[in-house]
Amino acid sequence: MDYGKLALEKHKQLRGKIALALKDTLDSREKLSVYYTPGVGAVSSYVAEHPDEARDYTWLNNVVAVVSDGSAVLGLGNIGPLGALPVMEGKAMLFKHFAGIDAVPIVLDVHTADEIVAAVKALAPSFGGINLEDIAAPICFEVEERLKAELAIPVMHDDQHGTAIVTLAGLINACKVTGRRLTDCTIELVGAGAAGIAIAKLLHVYAGPNIIAVDSKGVVHAGRSDLNEEKKKLLAFAKRHVSGNLADALREADIFIGVSKPGLLTAQLVKTMAKDPIIFAMANPVPEIMPDEARAAGAAVVATGRSDFPNQVNNALAFPGIFRGALDHRVRAITDAHKIVAAEAIAALVDQPDAEHIMPSVLDDRLCPTVAAVITKN
Amino acid sequence: MDYGKLALEKHKQLRGKIALALKDTLDSREKLSVYYTPGVGAVSSYVAEHPDEARDYTWLNNVVAVVSDGSAVLGLGNIGPLGALPVMEGKAMLFKHFAGIDAVPIVLDVHTADEIVAAVKALAPSFGGINLEDIAAPICFEVEERLKAELAIPVMHDDQHGTAIVTLAGLINACKVTGRRLTDCTIELVGAGAAGIAIAKLLHVYAGPNIIAVDSKGVVHAGRSDLNEEKKKLLAFAKRHVSGNLADALREADIFIGVSKPGLLTAQLVKTMAKDPIIFAMANPVPEIMPDEARAAGAAVVATGRSDFPNQVNNALAFPGIFRGALDHRVRAITDAHKIVAAEAIAALVDQPDAEHIMPSVLDDRLCPTVAAVITKN
Repeated sequence: MDYGKLALEKHKQLRGKIALALKDTLDSREKLSVYYTPGVGAVSSYVAEHPDEARDYTWLNNVVAVVSDGSAVLGLGNIGPLGALPVMEGKAMLFKHFAGIDAVPIVLDVHTADEIVAAVKALAPSFGGINLEDIAAPICFEVEERLKAELAIPVMHDDQHGTAIVTLAGLINACKVTGRRLTDCTIELVGAGAAGIAIAKLLHVYAGPNIIAVDSKGVVHAGRSDLNEEKKKLLAFAKRHVSGNLADALREADIFIGVSKPGLLTAQLVKTMAKDPIIFAMANPVPEIMPDEARAAGAAVVATGRSDFPNQVNNALAFPGIFRGALDHRVRAITDAHKIVAAEAIAALVDQPDAEHIMPSVLDDRLCPTVAAVITKN
Repeated sequence: MDYGKLALEKHKQLRGKIALALKDTLDSREKLSVYYTPGVGAVSSYVAEHPDEARDYTWLNNVVAVVSDGSAVLGLGNIGPLGALPVMEGKAMLFKHFAGIDAVPIVLDVHTADEIVAAVKALAPSFGGINLEDIAAPICFEVEERLKAELAIPVMHDDQHGTAIVTLAGLINACKVTGRRLTDCTIELVGAGAAGIAIAKLLHVYAGPNIIAVDSKGVVHAGRSDLNEEKKKLLAFAKRHVSGNLADALREADIFIGVSKPGLLTAQLVKTMAKDPIIFAMANPVPEIMPDEARAAGAAVVATGRSDFPNQVNNALAFPGIFRGALDHRVRAITDAHKIVAAEAIAALVDQPDAEHIMPSVLDDRLCPTVAAVITKN
């Protein structure tokens, strides 16, 4: 199926895929006077005097901004704000469909951390939450950290934490299937960008496994002088010193987690891993190794980001419920504790995990309410 | 009717009045693959390479931001961004109902011209047009001017130009009713804020009448040392020197235009005007003089901003069609020429103007398409 061609046709036919809807008609002078002047003046006065109740009188209780500067869009890279807009509209669609959330795509024409932070802080009173999306590392880390510190509404960079949550959910079940304890595992993590670093951080907090990270220059180790501040944080997650390249790090590893490049993992390398290894090959759209090949080389569980293979690790399993819960329960910040209970809740939706069933379906109706239920007050 | 009470009830019941709608359902893996990954990647690539076609593949062709910093909301003043949100949601509702435009309320937590301009420029790629709203004078002038100069999408501060357009429309018909030529009229304009100054500028360009402006300190004249740059521009519109107060300026004037304060105009003062004077008493919600009183004092035509009196001068007559036309015809900037043809088009919708019928109804279905049709390419 050529989804690209279909997508171009469909987007052009519909001219985008989202629109504004009204909660009531506006077909009389009466209604104009209630929803606009003069009636709305009383609402504005009341809200100005009782800011904590603004969400009860406006759509704040249900609206999230999907914010990107277009600097790291899908696998396409830095294609700018206009290029990012179709993806952000798509994300808004997912928010509405899966969580009933009114999401607004905001693509920004600024690209430094200072400017992005200033723009989002400026528009923040308009929204009940901020979903950051497709902002390049390492700027994304600073942007998110500063916004979380300075805003009283939930802010989440989904490429980091959505990915980390669903990866942890999948690993919880993959460990069940292969009879492992995550705490005892050695994990080779390939790709030390936004997603990779967030995955490592969450796994460390959850179970403290031995995590050996690899980036495009080889193993991330203390002897390197080219590590940025975020990558340096990865050093603390390795229980023993490894240097060299991907092959060196992979030897006897229990788990491969790839958020890197197509075709980077070979069958030969899989054979050097521990018995019954777990392979999460999440490069999109082409994984680090194809599932058939990985299984033939001995992998016990293989997960990818794709919907046409078993075990799809997809952010859409997490972010709708995360924000639904945050909005409903007036959560001011998404914490590590939230991410962990969300991952556990997602994993628990699979009754009897097996090699081809470690993740629930993104179309599972229980997902959003189940995740939302555990995202409770800070 | 206590619209304030009704409005509070209704807004709380609905929790705001706008929502997101999807142009298609999202109930299959197929559709997820078309509207989101992997299909959307082709759309993003295409749009990044053909930015002029972005509007054909996204909602850009139909989406306007309604932007306020909450510094001059209705008659309530500087009540801040949260207080402004119900009004901006209401405006979004009007955009959708009258023009089919998807409008998004953006309330800003910044208040200097530099910061507002920076924030709006940052988010501008997300929208096909910018409606500025309820931003205090004199900052509103600089904000609009700079944004118009720096952005390639239509930007309009509705408090200025929407008001000016509908005022001109009303005056065109009021002059017909009283047998006047606007060019020959002397106009006393009371209120030299955003609306007043924009009205004066547009009337000057359209017909060059004699305009005597009055602010809270009295007549705006060259002898004053307290005039800001915008108010100084008003000096050029007066054909003869007048100083003193409102009463001095009003003597023998043909037209009173008030965008000022309730009750400021008395019957006694109306009697000092020229025969059959025209009174536009547009302070909201209580006009400068009540219509009954003005007519009893000899006014030939009285207009207000209220829906419960004849001749309602309401921005909703203009802005939906202005933006509908700008979006449909890819207009990059709303010019004085656009404002004039819009005013003429609105005035022409009244077949046979008389003292109580100088404005079309805001509920007149012909309004938006008629105005949109004359907002054509720059």
